[in-house]
Amino acid sequence: MPRPPLLGIDQLVYGGDYNPEQWPPEVWREDVRLMQLAHVNCMSVGIFSWAWIEPRPGVFEFGWLDEVLDVLHSGGIKVNLATATASPPAWLCKMHPETLPVRADGTRLRQGSRQHYAPFSPAFRYYAERLVRKIASRYSQHPALASWHINNEYACHVWESFDPATVQGFRHWLEQRHGSIEALNRNWGTAFWSQRYANFDEIGPPAQLPTAANPAQALDWRRFSNAVLLDLCRMEIAAIREHSERVPISTNFMGFFPWLDQFEWAKDLDYASWDSYPDPSLGQAASSGAAMAHDLSRSLKGKPFILMEQASNQVNWRDINAPKAPGEMRALSYQALAHGADGVCFFQWRASRAGAERFHSAMVPHTPAEESRVFGEVATLGQELSRLGPIVGSETRAQVALLFDWTSRWALLERGRPACIDPAEEATRWYRELHAHNVAVDFQPPDADLSRYKLAIAPALYLLREDAAQALAAFVRAGGHLVVTFFSGVVDEHEQVGLGGYPAKLRELLGAWVEEWHPLTPAGAQTLRWAGDDDPGAPVEHWSELLHTTTASTLAHFGSGALEGRPALTVNSVGQGRAYYVATRLGPAAQARMLDLLLGESGVRGVLSTPAGVEATLRHGAEQSFLFLINHTDTPRRVALEREGLELIGGERSGQAVELEGRGVRVIALDA
Amino acid sequence: MPRPPLLGIDQLVYGGDYNPEQWPPEVWREDVRLMQLAHVNCMSVGIFSWAWIEPRPGVFEFGWLDEVLDVLHSGGIKVNLATATASPPAWLCKMHPETLPVRADGTRLRQGSRQHYAPFSPAFRYYAERLVRKIASRYSQHPALASWHINNEYACHVWESFDPATVQGFRHWLEQRHGSIEALNRNWGTAFWSQRYANFDEIGPPAQLPTAANPAQALDWRRFSNAVLLDLCRMEIAAIREHSERVPISTNFMGFFPWLDQFEWAKDLDYASWDSYPDPSLGQAASSGAAMAHDLSRSLKGKPFILMEQASNQVNWRDINAPKAPGEMRALSYQALAHGADGVCFFQWRASRAGAERFHSAMVPHTPAEESRVFGEVATLGQELSRLGPIVGSETRAQVALLFDWTSRWALLERGRPACIDPAEEATRWYRELHAHNVAVDFQPPDADLSRYKLAIAPALYLLREDAAQALAAFVRAGGHLVVTFFSGVVDEHEQVGLGGYPAKLRELLGAWVEEWHPLTPAGAQTLRWAGDDDPGAPVEHWSELLHTTTASTLAHFGSGALEGRPALTVNSVGQGRAYYVATRLGPAAQARMLDLLLGESGVRGVLSTPAGVEATLRHGAEQSFLFLINHTDTPRRVALEREGLELIGGERSGQAVELEGRGVRVIALDA
Amino acid sequence: MPRPPLLGIDQLVYGGDYNPEQWPPEVWREDVRLMQLAHVNCMSVGIFSWAWIEPRPGVFEFGWLDEVLDVLHSGGIKVNLATATASPPAWLCKMHPETLPVRADGTRLRQGSRQHYAPFSPAFRYYAERLVRKIASRYSQHPALASWHINNEYACHVWESFDPATVQGFRHWLEQRHGSIEALNRNWGTAFWSQRYANFDEIGPPAQLPTAANPAQALDWRRFSNAVLLDLCRMEIAAIREHSERVPISTNFMGFFPWLDQFEWAKDLDYASWDSYPDPSLGQAASSGAAMAHDLSRSLKGKPFILMEQASNQVNWRDINAPKAPGEMRALSYQALAHGADGVCFFQWRASRAGAERFHSAMVPHTPAEESRVFGEVATLGQELSRLGPIVGSETRAQVALLFDWTSRWALLERGRPACIDPAEEATRWYRELHAHNVAVDFQPPDADLSRYKLAIAPALYLLREDAAQALAAFVRAGGHLVVTFFSGVVDEHEQVGLGGYPAKLRELLGAWVEEWHPLTPAGAQTLRWAGDDDPGAPVEHWSELLHTTTASTLAHFGSGALEGRPALTVNSVGQGRAYYVATRLGPAAQARMLDLLLGESGVRGVLSTPAGVEATLRHGAEQSFLFLINHTDTPRRVALEREGLELIGGERSGQAVELEGRGVRVIALDA
Repeated sequence: MPRPPLLGIDQLVYGGDYNPEQWPPEVWREDVRLMQLAHVNCMSVGIFSWAWIEPRPGVFEFGWLDEVLDVLHSGGIKVNLATATASPPAWLCKMHPETLPVRADGTRLRQGSRQHYAPFSPAFRYYAERLVRKIASRYSQHPALASWHINNEYACHVWESFDPATVQGFRHWLEQRHGSIEALNRNWGTAFWSQRYANFDEIGPPAQLPTAANPAQALDWRRFSNAVLLDLCRMEIAAIREHSERVPISTNFMGFFPWLDQFEWAKDLDYASWDSYPDPSLGQAASSGAAMAHDLSRSLKGKPFILMEQASNQVNWRDINAPKAPGEMRALSYQALAHGADGVCFFQWRASRAGAERFHSAMVPHTPAEESRVFGEVATLGQELSRLGPIVGSETRAQVALLFDWTSRWALLERGRPACIDPAEEATRWYRELHAHNVAVDFQPPDADLSRYKLAIAPALYLLREDAAQALAAFVRAGGHLVVTFFSGVVDEHEQVGLGGYPAKLRELLGAWVEEWHPLTPAGAQTLRWAGDDDPGAPVEHWSELLHTTTASTLAHFGSGALEGRPALTVNSVGQGRAYYVATRLGPAAQARMLDLLLGESGVRGVLSTPAGVEATLRHGAEQSFLFLINHTDTPRRVALEREGLELIGGERSGQAVELEGRGVRVIALDA
Repeated sequence: MPRPPLLGIDQLVYGGDYNPEQWPPEVWREDVRLMQLAHVNCMSVGIFSWAWIEPRPGVFEFGWLDEVLDVLHSGGIKVNLATATASPPAWLCKMHPETLPVRADGTRLRQGSRQHYAPFSPAFRYYAERLVRKIASRYSQHPALASWHINNEYACHVWESFDPATVQGFRHWLEQRHGSIEALNRNWGTAFWSQRYANFDEIGPPAQLPTAANPAQALDWRRFSNAVLLDLCRMEIAAIREHSERVPISTNFMGFFPWLDQFEWAKDLDYASWDSYPDPSLGQAASSGAAMAHDLSRSLKGKPFILMEQASNQVNWRDINAPKAPGEMRALSYQALAHGADGVCFFQWRASRAGAERFHSAMVPHTPAEESRVFGEVATLGQELSRLGPIVGSETRAQVALLFDWTSRWALLERGRPACIDPAEEATRWYRELHAHNVAVDFQPPDADLSRYKLAIAPALYLLREDAAQALAAFVRAGGHLVVTFFSGVVDEHEQVGLGGYPAKLRELLGAWVEEWHPLTPAGAQTLRWAGDDDPGAPVEHWSELLHTTTASTLAHFGSGALEGRPALTVNSVGQGRAYYVATRLGPAAQARMLDLLLGESGVRGVLSTPAGVEATLRHGAEQSFLFLINHTDTPRRVALEREGLELIGGERSGQAVELEGRGVRVIALDA
Repeated sequence: MPRPPLLGIDQLVYGGDYNPEQWPPEVWREDVRLMQLAHVNCMSVGIFSWAWIEPRPGVFEFGWLDEVLDVLHSGGIKVNLATATASPPAWLCKMHPETLPVRADGTRLRQGSRQHYAPFSPAFRYYAERLVRKIASRYSQHPALASWHINNEYACHVWESFDPATVQGFRHWLEQRHGSIEALNRNWGTAFWSQRYANFDEIGPPAQLPTAANPAQALDWRRFSNAVLLDLCRMEIAAIREHSERVPISTNFMGFFPWLDQFEWAKDLDYASWDSYPDPSLGQAASSGAAMAHDLSRSLKGKPFILMEQASNQVNWRDINAPKAPGEMRALSYQALAHGADGVCFFQWRASRAGAERFHSAMVPHTPAEESRVFGEVATLGQELSRLGPIVGSETRAQVALLFDWTSRWALLERGRPACIDPAEEATRWYRELHAHNVAVDFQPPDADLSRYKLAIAPALYLLREDAAQALAAFVRAGGHLVVTFFSGVVDEHEQVGLGGYPAKLRELLGAWVEEWHPLTPAGAQTLRWAGDDDPGAPVEHWSELLHTTTASTLAHFGSGALEGRPALTVNSVGQGRAYYVATRLGPAAQARMLDLLLGESGVRGVLSTPAGVEATLRHGAEQSFLFLINHTDTPRRVALEREGLELIGGERSGQAVELEGRGVRVIALDA
């Protein structure tokens, strides 16, 4: 049975951020005419409206917003209504300068752009909560209301604050977390560098230090900063739920943004949504990155998500803001659907004349809309999407899980390791290869139930809790194929190193242990030689390890230097499954060969074989499956099908092969 | 009729900064002997003398300065007397720490180098004004006095201050400018990001923000900071004029330094002057840059200017301070004259033994002066210049205007545009080509009366007021040739985008409009193909635009990519003139061809055709014209003349051609 | 007669930092077992133990430390007991936030890493002194005590503080130094930029300035900051000496770290020691740098030193922390001995599980010690060193002195010179060539008695006091060969330039004077041509000078550009000796040729001729000389001996030639 639509709209959601306060009311009516032309069905309203709704403390002016919602409603357009807390008004900063965040260097920020609030600030919380209650109370019954949009891009610019109130909050949070100062001293290893604390009041934030911070303190600061923001989000949700019990709630994430633990956040949301801004100057490379973040967003709730923001053309905040080529916005929009989106929206509806983002493209440009390329593409896409109602609620079925843990990433992003590693970058290298094989991928935290997957890959899973280690072992024993890569399982949740051979908690599962880490310099080339092969060695990079096998077999050895002939890739059979260990970062050739081996062994296969630059994905509805074919190149590509079907955009039968024009797209409802 | 000499000296002014407080009085007499050897006739005195004139608050010690002026006067040397406000004494900083400027990051600067004052500070203004009055009152009748030198290199290190008093001043300035908070909200577009203000007290400076500032606020901050400094300069001028009604006044600018609107400042000065420090390690490239800034300085008052500072040899503030080659200082000195200078001065007379600039070269070096290369060249030049009295007051007659607007530049130097553009850099590219053709160029603000020019070029004139747009149209209608380049006319004075097709205020004049901006990455090559030509395409860079013509003809199209075949260069006939639009940054080949076309069409021609590295300029006196030939290379060059004349340095007839030795110079009074 | 052993231990000292507070007592006993396995004989204890010794203000807990010392003593292991002041406890920072240092930007640092104290802080001094007294009093009679370890790596992270108390201290220090404000004004040249002071209270630190500081002020700040730290060290020494009269005292330096004047510091220490962390990814290049710092450390006291810290394998604070290759730690350990060390120690004994340096290698790794490569190499080395008792106390006899002056370096490291020069880098270039010739080198301050040397080299000795200039002249007159390189002798101790031709104080000695400095850009190639030679010119770089000879002869001329044919290398015979001047930075070929010439003329010869990558040094005992041969490459090398002897590690006769395996080492007691 298909899922109910996320926002109660029986079609793919199509729209964008709508900021009517920037325009006189006569423009609002013209807007609705153009929205109808573009088959828009839902608009996000009020994201930056706090100063318009509450121009003076406690004085609320809702008349204009009433009118906006009525105008949209009369035009048949639903509303994703924002809580308007993203950018506090100037009067709040003047009345309560303590709401302004303080940077790591001790500088207090000012009002004048956006997101200028210290998330922990009680004064900010008081005014924000009152505002959300007012909005929720006023509009909870409005017939246009389809969803609630909490704040906006939490933490985008301010993910921590070093003001005194926040530091005091950190102390209380530490007391909750560790229970006693003795436990904190033990957990943080304060014996090192004479950092022992007699009580929590002695503790400060890990900033403005002569040299490296205590790593457990730095990690707790990240946990705390994430928790403070999540608490803010929960406060808004609770305020809405006082007045609006069932309307779905979301907040827009930013892909693999580092400082929020989205797995934790997603539990409080009704659906996931995110903002996608790949750099068009990167060409196809950008499309793989966007696909990966779509898969993350879908994984967060295990169901379709909304692409909440994208650009119709160029953005304005890079050094060089390349435009999207004709057809590129359309192809990227379909890519979101192909990876599980049930809606495609833009920032923003009408390009601003003023303000910091007036050179960010919009659905309606500065130039005459109906003569413009951009609005033309927007309107055409809207018309096409209106034919794709059948895919709403259909699901993605992945057999591969990429394991990702924000806490582990926070730990690794601190300095002081053998070399710099970002697990998101390591995951990207595996994802890119899986994506090229059209293999569906879910993202999961390492303690997830992995029983529905055949293959799980843990790239540089540095910090590993005991429960996660046990979950991984259970997955393998039950027949799963697990890949663990270098510098995984090194520390526990307090950043303390496991002794006796790395990775302490996994060495039995892997049948191997690491004695030393040998990071590679760019000049220090290293290769890998597959066992039983005559190949001269495939390049590996950045990292190598002095690895000992116990019960594992060696798949490949290092080819040169101090580690020549030592194991580089191993496999260990445990129960019904296998545990692989990769003691280096594979270059492209070795990565491709390793993935072929893994797919073969685990029985995972991609959707279809496609030419380079063309991706194929499947979504499964209650009765039908939908094949998405997207050509990200600007030249034609031919794809042979395994099953024929009805192409939904054009309404014609597919035949046995599809000729995709440059940036061409097909959505085929496959024959049963 | 020739103009009266700028400083009342009937010769080219020759001298430098003189800091006698660094030396005992016996050295002063030796100085005068050497000055006479070097044919020096004017010295700038007292620039950094505040702490010597007023060693304690209100205690003035003028005896030493009296003696210095008397010694100079008795040696026949005039004085350009400074107001001594450039570097406040330590006691002022100790008594009034609020006079110290505050950086954008909130740090208050300290005494210990120079220019450590917040320009808006009332305490600084009080003490500075009192000092200027004292100096003006004491020396206004001194027989050596030839000119007043206000402060020194305003804004060189400190062009803004974020101290509380200045921020409060910003609020009052905003109230004056916008009239009401409603008008400010409208002008700044505060509907964006919830930035609406209820009153002026809520507004802060555009610094320490989480992300991009409101662009109109950032621009008003630049305007305000410029106005505060100009107000300081006007205060000094007024204080002088209480005691000295006719002696000319100037302050030394720094070429295309970004933060002062020199067109506005020049109105209050009697003559323009500037400090020129091209990097000798750049070779000839530096000479074109210096020429451009000379032309700017001459344009400011439309009459001769003074080169107030240059280095005899190397400076000390670059990473690598290359020396000037033998003859290079001489050639660059003549270049200043060639572009309209009536004087050539140095920083400084005698090289300091102590202090931050003791490794900056001077007219008299640390080593025995009369045996040194440097003093030898200084003295020889002085002797030569003493023969060039006839050129004093002669004028430059340019048929080409480069339009330059500091306000527009301030706006563009903020981030958040499609790509980074500095109009000074764009102007430099046009200037370099004009300079290679020996075409005389004036710089003008865009609202100037352009009627005396045949050709006007507006490079990236991003911000355009209505009056300026009308002036440009009038210029074309009356027969002028106007070139407008990419990203011009995009916003109004409040940084708000003109709608309906860019550039809103010029699209009728240009007969074309821009739909999209397509900045180019260094990797994304683009070319331009001239209409009716078989050429394979000349490279263009950095920027391209999706351009539509209405009444304009297309001179060249883009050669590749998404814009292939679209217009790149257009021309529109309006009234008696033509308006060209250049929708990209031209590479050298396209730039040269475009300039040939423009010179041909507008009837502008260069002074002479010269070999590469040799420049030719003309100055016109009441009865004679003077041809300057300068060889910036170190090898001989031959130049054929159109008219013969008397060479003034050597005193011989020129013949029909001149053989210039390496770094050779000729000044030829042409036969009538 | 051989010197007594530095620490009273009749063997080479072998051990490391021991931090038992990080481990439970049962591990301590296991530690002693492993230490005995590794032939360890001395451990540094308590370096970061303040918070463990004094967990609350005035509450001292020594029981655990008593036990640690007893356990070590019962295992036959001596103790280098630390004063524990390196990292103040959190309670001190909470009670006395004024003890926290303030950076140049005004930011006050926080507790949370290490070395977070303002060295001048009276509160810090009070608590630190009380702690040292307590420790010294308690353990001065402990039988394990062999040495006192003062603080740790003074100034490593914090070498200055801009807090108000320190700034006030600077004023008093200035008053002591200059005597009167008039003298300070004269010495600092405050006439420049109006910096004249009426009293000392007006003076601040040279930070947060609009542009360049007064250079004499900047230099005095460096002198003061060095003096404040040295005063701290002296305070600790005095506190120890109240209780412990004879046990030797040292503190661990950091090679050519810029901000401490080690020649001055060493006078207060009983022996010198330092911490050596060459980057293994640099290969052999790192070994020359380590040798140079060993030679500095030996020169400080003119006797053997202790290598107080090195890494068994990789460190954790570089971007990429390369491991040491098998055998590399051993070769580098022997190199320390070869250059005069009487002991080799590590940071640290047992790798930490927690804290900022848990990824820094240690003698006992995280993995099972007795199975590990690292502990294996540590134990083998310990066994070998136990056979080398005869070399204890033997001395190095150098005939070459490299002149090095921290004050001059501090001055040069400020900006504003003709180009950037670091005398340590210039010294490195000379040292590298001397090292390749196996020539023993001492480092000496320029005012040292040089009578025991044949050759002295002064690289870029920018600041030169009168007494030093006289010492250099005396050295030459008495027969010494002196080399002075470019930009030497330019300023006096107040950073004031000597007039009349550079270098004012040396031009008679050199028989030459410099008129101009011509720094070279990377693009501006220059060459040098030897007199009477047909060579096409050897490359020189970075710097050149317009040099005039008076009594000197020219050895080589510049080969191109403005200085073509002018002197580049000169020699002047004075008394019995010769003074050379080098007016440029020599490239490798010219450097090698110049050194050959100097060695030949001065009669200095290297220990032996060895293949590239192999070094040979000699140490001289009372009755025997010891030849050290170290192969820093990983392939075999053959070395022919001039004298045979008994190899002490293997216990066999050397023969006439030695075949060194890759990273092989020999220590040969030469036959008399």
